[in-house]
Amino acid sequence: MIIVMKPKAPKESLEHIVNVIRTSGLDAHLSEGKEVTIIGVVGDKSLLKLSNLEIAPDVDKIVPITESYKLSNRKFHPDPTSIQVGSASIGPDSLTVMAGPCAIESEEQLILIAKSVKKAGATFLRGGAYKPRTSPYSFQGLEEEGLRYMKKAKEETGLATVCEVISAESLDAAVKYVDMVQIGARNMQNFQLLRQVGQSGIPVLLKRGLSSTIDEWLNAAEYIIAEGNSNVVLCERGIRTYETATRNTLDISAVPVLKSKTHLPVIVDPSHASGVRAYVPPLAKCAVAAGADGLMIEVHNNPACALSDGPQSLTFAQFDELTRELKAYAALSGRSF
Amino acid sequence: MIIVMKPKAPKESLEHIVNVIRTSGLDAHLSEGKEVTIIGVVGDKSLLKLSNLEIAPDVDKIVPITESYKLSNRKFHPDPTSIQVGSASIGPDSLTVMAGPCAIESEEQLILIAKSVKKAGATFLRGGAYKPRTSPYSFQGLEEEGLRYMKKAKEETGLATVCEVISAESLDAAVKYVDMVQIGARNMQNFQLLRQVGQSGIPVLLKRGLSSTIDEWLNAAEYIIAEGNSNVVLCERGIRTYETATRNTLDISAVPVLKSKTHLPVIVDPSHASGVRAYVPPLAKCAVAAGADGLMIEVHNNPACALSDGPQSLTFAQFDELTRELKAYAALSGRSF
Amino acid sequence: MIIVMKPKAPKESLEHIVNVIRTSGLDAHLSEGKEVTIIGVVGDKSLLKLSNLEIAPDVDKIVPITESYKLSNRKFHPDPTSIQVGSASIGPDSLTVMAGPCAIESEEQLILIAKSVKKAGATFLRGGAYKPRTSPYSFQGLEEEGLRYMKKAKEETGLATVCEVISAESLDAAVKYVDMVQIGARNMQNFQLLRQVGQSGIPVLLKRGLSSTIDEWLNAAEYIIAEGNSNVVLCERGIRTYETATRNTLDISAVPVLKSKTHLPVIVDPSHASGVRAYVPPLAKCAVAAGADGLMIEVHNNPACALSDGPQSLTFAQFDELTRELKAYAALSGRSF
Amino acid sequence: MIIVMKPKAPKESLEHIVNVIRTSGLDAHLSEGKEVTIIGVVGDKSLLKLSNLEIAPDVDKIVPITESYKLSNRKFHPDPTSIQVGSASIGPDSLTVMAGPCAIESEEQLILIAKSVKKAGATFLRGGAYKPRTSPYSFQGLEEEGLRYMKKAKEETGLATVCEVISAESLDAAVKYVDMVQIGARNMQNFQLLRQVGQSGIPVLLKRGLSSTIDEWLNAAEYIIAEGNSNVVLCERGIRTYETATRNTLDISAVPVLKSKTHLPVIVDPSHASGVRAYVPPLAKCAVAAGADGLMIEVHNNPACALSDGPQSLTFAQFDELTRELKAYAALSGRSF
Repeated sequence: MIIVMKPKAPKESLEHIVNVIRTSGLDAHLSEGKEVTIIGVVGDKSLLKLSNLEIAPDVDKIVPITESYKLSNRKFHPDPTSIQVGSASIGPDSLTVMAGPCAIESEEQLILIAKSVKKAGATFLRGGAYKPRTSPYSFQGLEEEGLRYMKKAKEETGLATVCEVISAESLDAAVKYVDMVQIGARNMQNFQLLRQVGQSGIPVLLKRGLSSTIDEWLNAAEYIIAEGNSNVVLCERGIRTYETATRNTLDISAVPVLKSKTHLPVIVDPSHASGVRAYVPPLAKCAVAAGADGLMIEVHNNPACALSDGPQSLTFAQFDELTRELKAYAALSGRSF
Repeated sequence: MIIVMKPKAPKESLEHIVNVIRTSGLDAHLSEGKEVTIIGVVGDKSLLKLSNLEIAPDVDKIVPITESYKLSNRKFHPDPTSIQVGSASIGPDSLTVMAGPCAIESEEQLILIAKSVKKAGATFLRGGAYKPRTSPYSFQGLEEEGLRYMKKAKEETGLATVCEVISAESLDAAVKYVDMVQIGARNMQNFQLLRQVGQSGIPVLLKRGLSSTIDEWLNAAEYIIAEGNSNVVLCERGIRTYETATRNTLDISAVPVLKSKTHLPVIVDPSHASGVRAYVPPLAKCAVAAGADGLMIEVHNNPACALSDGPQSLTFAQFDELTRELKAYAALSGRSF
Repeated sequence: MIIVMKPKAPKESLEHIVNVIRTSGLDAHLSEGKEVTIIGVVGDKSLLKLSNLEIAPDVDKIVPITESYKLSNRKFHPDPTSIQVGSASIGPDSLTVMAGPCAIESEEQLILIAKSVKKAGATFLRGGAYKPRTSPYSFQGLEEEGLRYMKKAKEETGLATVCEVISAESLDAAVKYVDMVQIGARNMQNFQLLRQVGQSGIPVLLKRGLSSTIDEWLNAAEYIIAEGNSNVVLCERGIRTYETATRNTLDISAVPVLKSKTHLPVIVDPSHASGVRAYVPPLAKCAVAAGADGLMIEVHNNPACALSDGPQSLTFAQFDELTRELKAYAALSGRSF
Repeated sequence: MIIVMKPKAPKESLEHIVNVIRTSGLDAHLSEGKEVTIIGVVGDKSLLKLSNLEIAPDVDKIVPITESYKLSNRKFHPDPTSIQVGSASIGPDSLTVMAGPCAIESEEQLILIAKSVKKAGATFLRGGAYKPRTSPYSFQGLEEEGLRYMKKAKEETGLATVCEVISAESLDAAVKYVDMVQIGARNMQNFQLLRQVGQSGIPVLLKRGLSSTIDEWLNAAEYIIAEGNSNVVLCERGIRTYETATRNTLDISAVPVLKSKTHLPVIVDPSHASGVRAYVPPLAKCAVAAGADGLMIEVHNNPACALSDGPQSLTFAQFDELTRELKAYAALSGRSF
């Protein structure tokens, strides 16, 4: 880290800072410029934690230099990671397509959808059993009953399965029925849940928070990995901006940025990012072109009557057409599905 | 709600919509304009929940008219609410000052701070026992031990106490030791936790999410009240914007906006909003001038050595001076503390 | 437009509104719901302009229904527009690649770059002669001298040329030398300049403002077209969000959104959107996959020594490789270049 | 500035950077840490302008240390500036109230408003003659005719006058009639206009851009001052965020932030910030409590019939009541008006 002093900081202020740094067991390098002096701190900055140097006399600002996430950081793990989930693998050599309804509504519905998306090329079935909804008066999901349908659908189709968890209880239930759990955008910084998911060891799909920076997102992944579970896949699902033409703004640049900052696989959810069915196919192609390792897409047998997020769900015919097109895009970067 | 049709929508599309509305037991009013036809839906729109009319043929868009929150809505509860917490009351007739350290560090420290902030006029002691931190490697709080110190501090000073909870377990512990629990910004849409807090009946300080709209915030309050707990106080603590000169951007307009939309009390946290000690006093005065019912301010016996958020904490002398000034601002709107 | 009344609005308030509407020559349709009454206004709402009904007694809010832009609106011009610029055409049947340096530095440099990008497939040469720079102490461009080099480069290569204008004077100069003028992000709502560009009749590349909504952008296009110049091409170049990992956040969803809202061609500038050279190729592919009609990419003979935006410029070799790859992406939607 | 190298950057890369720095006439200080090496550059960094070190081999990132604005920077001009405009003064010893209609509509209207706001305590008359409007079909202002009415109103009341300019022509006209010109939010980075206003020498009210950072804003002020005109007053008027309950989000923290970063006076416009009349009084009090040097408030004789922004304009009675209250708030910081 770098400490930038105010112009004309007196000698005693400089000496105070240097003294704090050195008595913490660290090394201080001074660069005296015409306008300001800066002090480079070399060593493990956590040793400084009890000295809030931002408020020491004549300090202008502190500039951090290294990222606080280590286990998820590509600087220290240069090779991209592949993660095995049930029968499927997520990583640089394939294009993973996860598809299914926003909310699980019944066993028949789920199995109908599972068979259809499998035929089109999906290797994962998604479906919500615990639904975080803005209003308490909206449909909240079938809970454990929904998880049982997921297990059934897996038995019938062989698809890997992924379900959102929202609490310790839902996690305890989910590990019994599905292959992968999802941490939704609203829980990306529910650190208690991150730790529990980390301890469970189950593969995790970690969605980006509604307005989380990429740094905060990788720190959230760090919470999981620090508990010993390195099976983490990141999922970009749109961020909150001032633009209201789409429900969220898909931050497609996050894909190449993540590829440079972390070794973890990255997938994209164009359904939640846009909230509008017509925009899902172009954004799905986009994600593949940007280098994503996979997609999560909402598909419903009858979107007009879906209990949740119908307006962004594709019909079976639309999903079939999209996967046909996606195969050509995937082939351009040597991937298949 | 209003359904806006596309220009030149054919008659059959209109008839289809009107039919769906009427068979749901609702009434449809058509306004045929030169360019477009709009359809007003009259009645309880939840009856329509299985018909996603956004994707019906020739629909341009759906415009909601009424808010989904009812219990927290001032339209239906015109008088402002006062909430009694321990020995203190939060509402339109007083100015409530909550003060204390970001994180509880030891019993001695907490009691020292409690006595000092009480002398300056605070009626609430705040202090974090469970700390949600961006990085897993930062100090995470003393947990239940910290709660015990809060109880001790209350016994010694008579201050009401408030502590953040982050999970079912921390809530179960907190209700035994403190007067009010806080839902932090990162958990504002942890709907499971909102419901549990609602069921507990304990007074709740509900902080605004990092990038939550005022509508989403009032829907979060609705989750708590819908469980039978109407002791909810809202706390504006800054929102995420592109500006980096402050840690967050204090949305001071939220105070008058909330006063018009809800009957619940509103307080402001200038410490987390700015992240910079020097900006806390002007923003605290601001909050009072804008009509807030109270303030939450971080105070520390030795900010340079605070384990969390030291750079935004006031010293005892700074807090004394601020409360002296705040009394004059409070008096201008007939409040005192 | 829709006028939403407050709950229990008295009869006189309703009558007042209806009276204002009808005496303005418009029609009012009432829908009386259980909670609120809404009033649909049918007809040309500009007739109401002297009555600010938002502040009439008991009005809760006004909801606009139709867009204020008409000439750029796809609702009234369903077929996509192709625009001819010099020897090149921008529209649905081709993929237009504009390339060149951020700032024009010398005649030799510009011609060297022009020849290289032409060989790789570009049909447009871009280059800045008037540079809007955040700091007054940064390089501000060669002005008219730069325009002369553009003309020279066009004569040598046959490329169509595009240059940013920032004022009436620079526009007067530009029309003498180049085929198309660009309105930059910072001038998207410089309405005086928009009108002047509209009157000039020259083809216009209209970049999106730093934090403009798509609606504001289409209204800016409307300013130009309303002056009789319908040769407008829109250019998405990233919007301002809280995320700092890229200079701006490329709003790739804007491409399909614009395709549904306007008949004008849409291109994407991945160089300014990201500000980082390594992210330009994946974002360029993205733009093609999303359905953009073209790309604007910064290319420099020696990025390490560029006078402006070197860090986001591609070298000749990088641009060659990118265009080779882009041809395959373009082919997937039946386009070539 | 600081250059941060990638982990394990080879010696040759370090030597290359140090060589570029030293041959530019600057000094390089190395701090070799366990993970990374950083290089402090000491001296006038503009000497480095032809070397884009961000893209040199093994460079991770460049961190700027000093601000690019100098003349507007409080670090180099520690005393707050007072600016004399006509009969009025703006600065730390007074509270300046500017009031008037959004748009000038007629001579009678303007003089009527001028007399009323003067009686209530305003020392400045505001009024728009050139109106930048989102849609080309909205009222665009009376232009030079409006300026003549401003002059008349000044002669009748003695108020200082301020009018927005949007181009070289409107500036040429304005300097003949009014005391101060305003650069609106949409032109904050119209650098050509900033330079022209700088050359004119007339006092300038520089509004913050819709989504400008404080740094960009002070760089815009620098453009004006660098031309020899140091009569610049900054006006916070709300920034664009995701929240739609108010038209913009008043960034009230900008007041104390600016007070620490610049010596220029700062005023606040609560009318444009909120867009809603009911929120103007609490936000005006807020601005005074935060330490602003003044206010700009829209007042209209008949808001329901205003040609522009009626819904945010105060009536005469509302403005009278507000100024009575504001005097008490101003007194708390030793100011009067």
